[in-house]
Amino acid sequence: MTNGILKGKKGIIFGALDDKSIAWKVAERCAEEGAQIVLTNAPVALRMGGIYDLAKKLNTEVIPADATSVEDLENLLARSMELMGGKIDFMLHSIGMSVNVRKKKEYTDLNYEWMKTTLDVSAISFHKLMQTAMKMDAMNEWGSILALSYIAAQRVFPDYSEMAEAKALLESFARSFGYHWAKKAKVRVNTISQSPTVTTAGSGVKGFTDFFGYADKMSPLGNADALSCADYCVAMFSDYTRMVTMQNLYHDGGFSSMGMAPEILE
Amino acid sequence: MTNGILKGKKGIIFGALDDKSIAWKVAERCAEEGAQIVLTNAPVALRMGGIYDLAKKLNTEVIPADATSVEDLENLLARSMELMGGKIDFMLHSIGMSVNVRKKKEYTDLNYEWMKTTLDVSAISFHKLMQTAMKMDAMNEWGSILALSYIAAQRVFPDYSEMAEAKALLESFARSFGYHWAKKAKVRVNTISQSPTVTTAGSGVKGFTDFFGYADKMSPLGNADALSCADYCVAMFSDYTRMVTMQNLYHDGGFSSMGMAPEILE
Amino acid sequence: MTNGILKGKKGIIFGALDDKSIAWKVAERCAEEGAQIVLTNAPVALRMGGIYDLAKKLNTEVIPADATSVEDLENLLARSMELMGGKIDFMLHSIGMSVNVRKKKEYTDLNYEWMKTTLDVSAISFHKLMQTAMKMDAMNEWGSILALSYIAAQRVFPDYSEMAEAKALLESFARSFGYHWAKKAKVRVNTISQSPTVTTAGSGVKGFTDFFGYADKMSPLGNADALSCADYCVAMFSDYTRMVTMQNLYHDGGFSSMGMAPEILE
Amino acid sequence: MTNGILKGKKGIIFGALDDKSIAWKVAERCAEEGAQIVLTNAPVALRMGGIYDLAKKLNTEVIPADATSVEDLENLLARSMELMGGKIDFMLHSIGMSVNVRKKKEYTDLNYEWMKTTLDVSAISFHKLMQTAMKMDAMNEWGSILALSYIAAQRVFPDYSEMAEAKALLESFARSFGYHWAKKAKVRVNTISQSPTVTTAGSGVKGFTDFFGYADKMSPLGNADALSCADYCVAMFSDYTRMVTMQNLYHDGGFSSMGMAPEILE
Repeated sequence: MTNGILKGKKGIIFGALDDKSIAWKVAERCAEEGAQIVLTNAPVALRMGGIYDLAKKLNTEVIPADATSVEDLENLLARSMELMGGKIDFMLHSIGMSVNVRKKKEYTDLNYEWMKTTLDVSAISFHKLMQTAMKMDAMNEWGSILALSYIAAQRVFPDYSEMAEAKALLESFARSFGYHWAKKAKVRVNTISQSPTVTTAGSGVKGFTDFFGYADKMSPLGNADALSCADYCVAMFSDYTRMVTMQNLYHDGGFSSMGMAPEILE
Repeated sequence: MTNGILKGKKGIIFGALDDKSIAWKVAERCAEEGAQIVLTNAPVALRMGGIYDLAKKLNTEVIPADATSVEDLENLLARSMELMGGKIDFMLHSIGMSVNVRKKKEYTDLNYEWMKTTLDVSAISFHKLMQTAMKMDAMNEWGSILALSYIAAQRVFPDYSEMAEAKALLESFARSFGYHWAKKAKVRVNTISQSPTVTTAGSGVKGFTDFFGYADKMSPLGNADALSCADYCVAMFSDYTRMVTMQNLYHDGGFSSMGMAPEILE
Repeated sequence: MTNGILKGKKGIIFGALDDKSIAWKVAERCAEEGAQIVLTNAPVALRMGGIYDLAKKLNTEVIPADATSVEDLENLLARSMELMGGKIDFMLHSIGMSVNVRKKKEYTDLNYEWMKTTLDVSAISFHKLMQTAMKMDAMNEWGSILALSYIAAQRVFPDYSEMAEAKALLESFARSFGYHWAKKAKVRVNTISQSPTVTTAGSGVKGFTDFFGYADKMSPLGNADALSCADYCVAMFSDYTRMVTMQNLYHDGGFSSMGMAPEILE
Repeated sequence: MTNGILKGKKGIIFGALDDKSIAWKVAERCAEEGAQIVLTNAPVALRMGGIYDLAKKLNTEVIPADATSVEDLENLLARSMELMGGKIDFMLHSIGMSVNVRKKKEYTDLNYEWMKTTLDVSAISFHKLMQTAMKMDAMNEWGSILALSYIAAQRVFPDYSEMAEAKALLESFARSFGYHWAKKAKVRVNTISQSPTVTTAGSGVKGFTDFFGYADKMSPLGNADALSCADYCVAMFSDYTRMVTMQNLYHDGGFSSMGMAPEILE
């Protein structure tokens, strides 16, 4: 599907790692829909290399940036505007990582230094990005900023551990900063609360496979995959959704509205 | 804006009264985006006549239907499929009317016979439409059904009176039936919770002007107007949003996420 | 447990059928806590007889009332005030019945006449009760009105069918009327969203046993039983909770905040 | 009002500063209701001295603890159990402080080092308290843990700044840890989302007076004061509310359920 609904728009996509990444699909779909984009990821993630293939395919560049570094973000925004010849119309924040989950610490035995890193990387980076962009006056009017979230921000999935808190924080930043962006430049800010998705990052969570299957049965339309999420991001970046802001939007095949699916009991 | 994102799709639009109606704008925008549509409204509303001009302009027909009558709905669906040569891809339910509000009965002095009519017209009609369409197998796979709602379903606006209940009921039908439609044909069902809008119907509510101004100040992007709502409906009918279902989607310039706007205090 | 926290208060309890009823436990607990109460139920339910044993035990009376009849409600309120020697401090609405569920009609094949009865009995009766009481000025200042609800008002449990809509409507009435009661007499109005409970009524729902077990596993504290619900109602009727109003309060062992319980997957 | 509903229970109260503090009122009310309590606050807050008068009045002790220090929390819990002769039944976390707000930094110009302190003091301290208590097996079965929150966790109040994020994080910790506490010892964990309250801390927020008046008009019962909040905390610590867990409970005179109050427009 391609209708050119992002024609003339300029965007920055964070978090494409490999072709399983949601951000990867978003980048591809934005390009197909006519947008000019810049890719970025943390230096450590760039080493895996896939993102350069994507940049080549999409005829664009990768600008490395550690999203927890205001300096890196300033550089990213400055170079992006230079490269694309103008201000930014949309940005996707698709960044999340829990040190405690990686190190297999239980939720009742968390390491608080690691938690600080988790919150900084997964949530505070979103505020840093928006604050930096605002100071640089880097967004065009009626622009659109998105971050990817998960329903653990509202409900408890014990294995998701401190990432629940990271997502709750992320969604709160979206609401709060959404007010200021609306006032400044009619830019909207939303989070998309996506189904569990088979990505290299997502699959790392303990018990992911069982969990994925459960969510798939619980969701009347099944789990939403990365490509459909990319389509939805495109819609949220486009001019069809200009007045939607400060929302957490469930893109989950109906999971969030289910109390019990008969399919689970069978 | 027109990108042909509804090309090849067939839809039914309820509730276009005159050119201020949201449904009117939705019909126009759907046509611009390549959809084939049929218009419908209650016989009493048709007498105002405007809808026939719209039908002419959009090169389509008006099929009268009282949405509280299952027989009328059967006829509407049958003739629509005949006229458009196939099953339906999308439907918009934009119907709401409170007898008690019209007759200026206070919320603490409601007439219960009138309340029944209010609920039947404004909410139960939506279940009737979906049940009738399901029995007739009238929807294509991956279709999209929308109803227009208002945030009074979640929060109290005293002057909105029993329409709050009608909208709460409407949104509940969307969730509940959304499960069944997903299972049957991967059809999604959502409600759009729209800003107060200057329509011939909306303006009838007591104190509408003050209320409209209040919401406009409270919403960081201002109130969403009928045209932007139509754009959003188009996005929700399109294939960009296939995995969003059983949701109540705020299209309100951020109103729903505000606790207090400094603009109000000034 | 008895601490006399309802000493001097007068209440009306709807919906006690037999000793499994939540309302039965509420009546017992209110009496233990020092309140004076009156019992009521629909004539058809009274025929089962148990309620008279309860009245005897609690040294009070049963005043029959069909809660859909304003006339009956007027009589109930008048006689209750007479009997207890003053205005009412608290009321419990514990009434729910779905004709379509009883008659085993599928949600996609509902009978709309029956639906009207369902909504009237299960939800509109709550508005009727509050409107009648307000017209009669029957509530003391700082009184408390409760209705029992279920999480199907927010999330889909397919077998719960149209009762989901009845509960959504009920909760909306609580919010809306809560505004007016607060303004008139500082009376609060809330709904308690209770775990599935083994009652004569509740057990009638299709697949209740599986459902009950699922909810029990999903709830970190297990399902809340009728007695603990009664304790919670007592707290909500007492002066410890005077400023809580227009809320839907989950009393469910944590069910409503769970996304997935590892106990389900095992 | 005193009914002895906390007789035999042992509790720890964080955050009493002076007699305007909610925590101060909670301590008084708990004692009146028969509980044994220990007071604690950060060393810096103790210097103001009032808390020692309260301890004297309630015939108890003050155990200083910086809630961001796990070591201090271990000491607090150990000494509290020693002093009261057994495990803890309830705890109140009433701690919040934003460095950026104090230093009058705008939300679009936050200092991220200060933000880390804000989140640590106002939210992560709650996880630390619960994790430490769990490791020490310091809570009795059916205990109750509360933290005080604010509706800025859900909706935007621009002047509340990063405290919105701190509260969103706090509430997420309550939900997540609530699961583990329920499983371990049937302990419940909830947050109370309280009206704006005239406290020494609360009044420091920019534009507090206007804001307080706005909330008061918007709330059908008016703003809930510190004493009524204390009553509600008592109810949540008592055995009347054992099955309520992982909830955010609005204690706000109805504010959270209002969309627009006619009182505001007048």
